[in-house]
Amino acid sequence: MTIAVIYGGTRPNGNAEILTDHTIQGIDVEKIYLKDYSIHSIIDQRHTEEGFQDINDDYNSIIERVMQHDILIFSTPIYWYSMSGAMKHFIDRWSQTLRDSKFPDFKTNMSSKRAYVIAVGGDNPTIKGLPMIQQFQYIFDFMGISFEGYILGEGNKPGDILHDENALFAASQLQKLFS
Amino acid sequence: MTIAVIYGGTRPNGNAEILTDHTIQGIDVEKIYLKDYSIHSIIDQRHTEEGFQDINDDYNSIIERVMQHDILIFSTPIYWYSMSGAMKHFIDRWSQTLRDSKFPDFKTNMSSKRAYVIAVGGDNPTIKGLPMIQQFQYIFDFMGISFEGYILGEGNKPGDILHDENALFAASQLQKLFS
Amino acid sequence: MTIAVIYGGTRPNGNAEILTDHTIQGIDVEKIYLKDYSIHSIIDQRHTEEGFQDINDDYNSIIERVMQHDILIFSTPIYWYSMSGAMKHFIDRWSQTLRDSKFPDFKTNMSSKRAYVIAVGGDNPTIKGLPMIQQFQYIFDFMGISFEGYILGEGNKPGDILHDENALFAASQLQKLFS
Amino acid sequence: MTIAVIYGGTRPNGNAEILTDHTIQGIDVEKIYLKDYSIHSIIDQRHTEEGFQDINDDYNSIIERVMQHDILIFSTPIYWYSMSGAMKHFIDRWSQTLRDSKFPDFKTNMSSKRAYVIAVGGDNPTIKGLPMIQQFQYIFDFMGISFEGYILGEGNKPGDILHDENALFAASQLQKLFS
Repeated sequence: MTIAVIYGGTRPNGNAEILTDHTIQGIDVEKIYLKDYSIHSIIDQRHTEEGFQDINDDYNSIIERVMQHDILIFSTPIYWYSMSGAMKHFIDRWSQTLRDSKFPDFKTNMSSKRAYVIAVGGDNPTIKGLPMIQQFQYIFDFMGISFEGYILGEGNKPGDILHDENALFAASQLQKLFS
Repeated sequence: MTIAVIYGGTRPNGNAEILTDHTIQGIDVEKIYLKDYSIHSIIDQRHTEEGFQDINDDYNSIIERVMQHDILIFSTPIYWYSMSGAMKHFIDRWSQTLRDSKFPDFKTNMSSKRAYVIAVGGDNPTIKGLPMIQQFQYIFDFMGISFEGYILGEGNKPGDILHDENALFAASQLQKLFS
Repeated sequence: MTIAVIYGGTRPNGNAEILTDHTIQGIDVEKIYLKDYSIHSIIDQRHTEEGFQDINDDYNSIIERVMQHDILIFSTPIYWYSMSGAMKHFIDRWSQTLRDSKFPDFKTNMSSKRAYVIAVGGDNPTIKGLPMIQQFQYIFDFMGISFEGYILGEGNKPGDILHDENALFAASQLQKLFS
Repeated sequence: MTIAVIYGGTRPNGNAEILTDHTIQGIDVEKIYLKDYSIHSIIDQRHTEEGFQDINDDYNSIIERVMQHDILIFSTPIYWYSMSGAMKHFIDRWSQTLRDSKFPDFKTNMSSKRAYVIAVGGDNPTIKGLPMIQQFQYIFDFMGISFEGYILGEGNKPGDILHDENALFAASQLQKLFS
């Protein structure tokens, strides 16, 4: 049982990252910081004659790393009541991988995984982050991924999350589960 | 009363675009196709000493055009139960504009606008597109924009939307309103 | 293919009823007005030794009528952003029927049905009615009922709904489908 | 600062009640068990000539007790992805009180309150209970009540909730806040 953490934040040591790192303290995980890579927007070519064209960026190498793990943690700041654009770009590209002959077992592989979402926002996240959680549920359902749980934390300024006792406790519970 | 349409689709003449163009038939609008521009991911520098750094892409020129209109139509395909990554990138950058001394009246300007959302998806959009609509509501509420209505259409293959009678009717109602 | 309409409104000729009756114009349906019957609140006895006790009200006779049809239309005013209490009481009682030896095939029977929801509210129903729609989706999913569509109309005073062109059009589309 | 707890459950010592009672341990509160009272369904008479007619049940005495407190805790089992029918009946009647000359300051009174929701369900409540939370948000917004927080716990059989560590921790945090 191995874990990959996909970080969607765009600043170092942001609140979502801090909270996420509580859940994996002392645990060996593969960390993927999307901000360190170039991931282009998907171009919808599902219905063109040639189909999707290869895109020359870092996406394929990232999805290969993701596919090697059993548990995925999606860690994202809440930007405008949803996942960061960086994380959205990453997930949008799954539509291409689903049709990519280089990844014939993408869906089968993903469907065996379990996923968690850890997100931190500044504007009433336990209410206004709920549509985002419902979207992750739909995304995971589509792929056959089991949505095992989520934590919605509150924070704006760096380190704010350390005052959200409920989120920290939920993180410590996850950490026990992963240990 | 002038209208800007912001297209988030990534293929020419996609279903969301077709449906949107029904609503503005015969009406003079400014069309902004996000796919034709370079818009970088936001980098959250709200809490760095220097604040946000200028980004050398097309975003500022687009937001300037948007600010000149009274009505905004957000037209997006539904990718993974949410707006396209391209549109998310565009909206994420508002966080920077809100703090940009070159746009001192950004929020005031935006708060006088009325907005519509037109979205088309292939997987049960009238149900699974609902969280996205709730997110647009939160986004508009934050900016003080009045959310005047939305259309959720169904379609996958190019042109599918032409079979969604309810969506087409709602589009024709909007068209009358805009005329 | 026969249709039962379950009306949750509490005034005669309310907006939800008017809109619903547009969808069944000229069609032979069984109409069930919940307000005309006594339906007690469920008492959760799932875990008592004796299990659920028979309740002496009209519920059983109603559910028997419902079970005889292929298509169910749930017609409800939106009270406080959800279905009426009368309709909620009716659905809550399904928990008892699911365990009632007098209805051994309740779930199997229900799982073959197709359902529509028609709801009218006065406070921005196309946005604030969305959680109710998601709840109907969960309810139908649990029972195996296929959720075929919904109409959210706007209205407060009696007859207001006749000004909601989109809702009326969607109703006429349903009427064609049922004919 | 005084607290009223409104219990919507229908069995004694149910999971929602147990969880709620953790939050008020050692604290003096007024407990209102809706199941012990008769509360009729609202009959929508907003638009009849005579307006709402008095209903001879226990509702008025309950709303009077509720109005005397600063903090309201809505404690409900999740039935069919929403609050219990008993609690829905109670809230539906607010529409009448808002127009009842015996309660001229109902809305003003309610708008000064802070509210919490504590709900327990058996079918993935932290996901499938989210629409209910959004509905409570709309309800509280309408009344001007401040929605201060919620706990969604998991449980089916009596006592199950005692295994939901996250819910128990959140309850203990609330208890500290109330002390």
